[in-house]
Amino acid sequence: MIIDCHGHYTTAPEPHNVWRETQKANFKAGGDVDPAYPDISDDEIVESIEKNQLRLIRERGADLTVFSPRASTMAHHVGNEDVSKAWTRRCNDLIKRVIDLFPETFVGVCQLPQSPGVDITHSIGELERCVNELGFIGCNLNPDPSGGKWNGPPLTDKAWYPFYEKMVELDVPAMIHVSGSCNPNFHATGAHYINADTTAFMQFIEADLFKDFPDLRFIIPHGGGAVPYHWGRYRGLADMLKKPLLRDHVMKNVYFDTCVYHQPGIDLLFRVIDVKNILFGSEMVGAVRGIDPETGNYFDDTKRYIDALPISAEEKAMVFEGNARRVYPRLDKILKTQGR
Amino acid sequence: MIIDCHGHYTTAPEPHNVWRETQKANFKAGGDVDPAYPDISDDEIVESIEKNQLRLIRERGADLTVFSPRASTMAHHVGNEDVSKAWTRRCNDLIKRVIDLFPETFVGVCQLPQSPGVDITHSIGELERCVNELGFIGCNLNPDPSGGKWNGPPLTDKAWYPFYEKMVELDVPAMIHVSGSCNPNFHATGAHYINADTTAFMQFIEADLFKDFPDLRFIIPHGGGAVPYHWGRYRGLADMLKKPLLRDHVMKNVYFDTCVYHQPGIDLLFRVIDVKNILFGSEMVGAVRGIDPETGNYFDDTKRYIDALPISAEEKAMVFEGNARRVYPRLDKILKTQGR
Repeated sequence: MIIDCHGHYTTAPEPHNVWRETQKANFKAGGDVDPAYPDISDDEIVESIEKNQLRLIRERGADLTVFSPRASTMAHHVGNEDVSKAWTRRCNDLIKRVIDLFPETFVGVCQLPQSPGVDITHSIGELERCVNELGFIGCNLNPDPSGGKWNGPPLTDKAWYPFYEKMVELDVPAMIHVSGSCNPNFHATGAHYINADTTAFMQFIEADLFKDFPDLRFIIPHGGGAVPYHWGRYRGLADMLKKPLLRDHVMKNVYFDTCVYHQPGIDLLFRVIDVKNILFGSEMVGAVRGIDPETGNYFDDTKRYIDALPISAEEKAMVFEGNARRVYPRLDKILKTQGR
Repeated sequence: MIIDCHGHYTTAPEPHNVWRETQKANFKAGGDVDPAYPDISDDEIVESIEKNQLRLIRERGADLTVFSPRASTMAHHVGNEDVSKAWTRRCNDLIKRVIDLFPETFVGVCQLPQSPGVDITHSIGELERCVNELGFIGCNLNPDPSGGKWNGPPLTDKAWYPFYEKMVELDVPAMIHVSGSCNPNFHATGAHYINADTTAFMQFIEADLFKDFPDLRFIIPHGGGAVPYHWGRYRGLADMLKKPLLRDHVMKNVYFDTCVYHQPGIDLLFRVIDVKNILFGSEMVGAVRGIDPETGNYFDDTKRYIDALPISAEEKAMVFEGNARRVYPRLDKILKTQGR
């Protein structure tokens, strides 16, 4: 089967977005930051999925998407901790409704109620709720909740450790994923996303996080940012920093998805990164929605690029399914319950 | 001939670095930020070059290096504008001495006296001095003089325009190059450098800078950051932003160097980027100084990767020489004066 590890609910029904606007307006006016949530019918949700993700999943031939709230609108930098908490809960609850409506097509990954300067331990409760009560299989962890100011500690700082302990206890991985940018230097999907991926990887090289947490697992999206292209640089920097080889130092715990929107990029990814570290992902419906005039296909139809690779059927099965089942043990359990 | 467009004087004689430490200490103590400069003999400079850059240039078979002050120690965020001005002048003057000692092996590119929050017009005087009086052929422009806080305007903001006007008037390009990072999130050479390259390129996509300055030329170092690996994403984002094709919108004015430290990365660079936009560079002696255990060669011996490419002799000549002569017209003039 084909598991897409990276899908966001970018097409949520409009009342959900209106609620968010109301919330932000209320915050500014000093009002209720958790106002009444609109009635959104199952039909509205079904329509928003069938017209978009499900249509594309069927057209492109995937089976299941690891689904999380829209990344660019997590916007942890907006408002304060209460704003982030209320919004996050609404977003995760909406994902849960999608999953209940399409239990064979989607599994949930949660947004976290991060907020700049707020201790990450405050996000543990929502992670537990989503995993234990809603049946989610992982989370999206924002390495820069400030939205492009980068004024918090690196991911390897001990401040993050209590959260990592909970991830290990629950046996869930995190996708490292920033949100929108409020820094005019950084275009969200064109710079901030890719920079964050690159930054996180280099933080892992500099520190010894995975000595402290040998079972911690991260997915770095967007093909690992700049990392595979500069794989020689990263191997060389690890050497200069007197760290072990990357395969031992970082790559037992870090995975890249395939959200790289052209064949040469995917070819490079598979040339330098071990196939056991690569998870199929499309980020669909997401950052880039157009058709590549050079191929006539959608930029984010990443399955085509993998289909075109000269790798074995076993290797393709790892990328499409096996690796995801290993990185998300709770996904494997859900699938087995479903007889898959 | 073989022109390396990206070399820094990372091996300057120790008294130069001691001067900088004195300057910083004086700044803290409220003292003279332009103290007397030490006597550095020609022999010391010759030794620092012959043992390092010149030895490697000879071993690797290059002819000429476009040479600038060490990038990581430009440190525009240290001190204030006066500190930056005095340090910059000392650094550029030292480069001039190297050039006078090795006029056939080095040509100069200058550091700028940028300082966070200070108008870029204050850097015009030093650019003019270096080009008109010292015979330099370009400059390194720091898109983030804050050193990783990214709190200034994007490169496409009108605040930069007076500087670009001067670049066009003098007919010199700029390499976009950040300096050290004072943000613990960003390792300097592993994250900040690569992020800045990616960020600058995306800024160019978002705006219409090259409509306003059709003759402005930038070199984005380190192989263009993440851009070639994500070439599909950038083509797709330009399309979503209703911009022209990248070859018309950005690539008439932007060039990438070859500071990518492994064969697969260089292969990708040449697969997706037009050869007329690629300049040979090594960043030597620089960010990564070790030997790749997978090849037995230095990571930054980038000439080997280009030699191994299946491209024509004419294309190699463009990358090694022709493109640099076109992008740096003042280099071409110097070489012609030398009968080269």
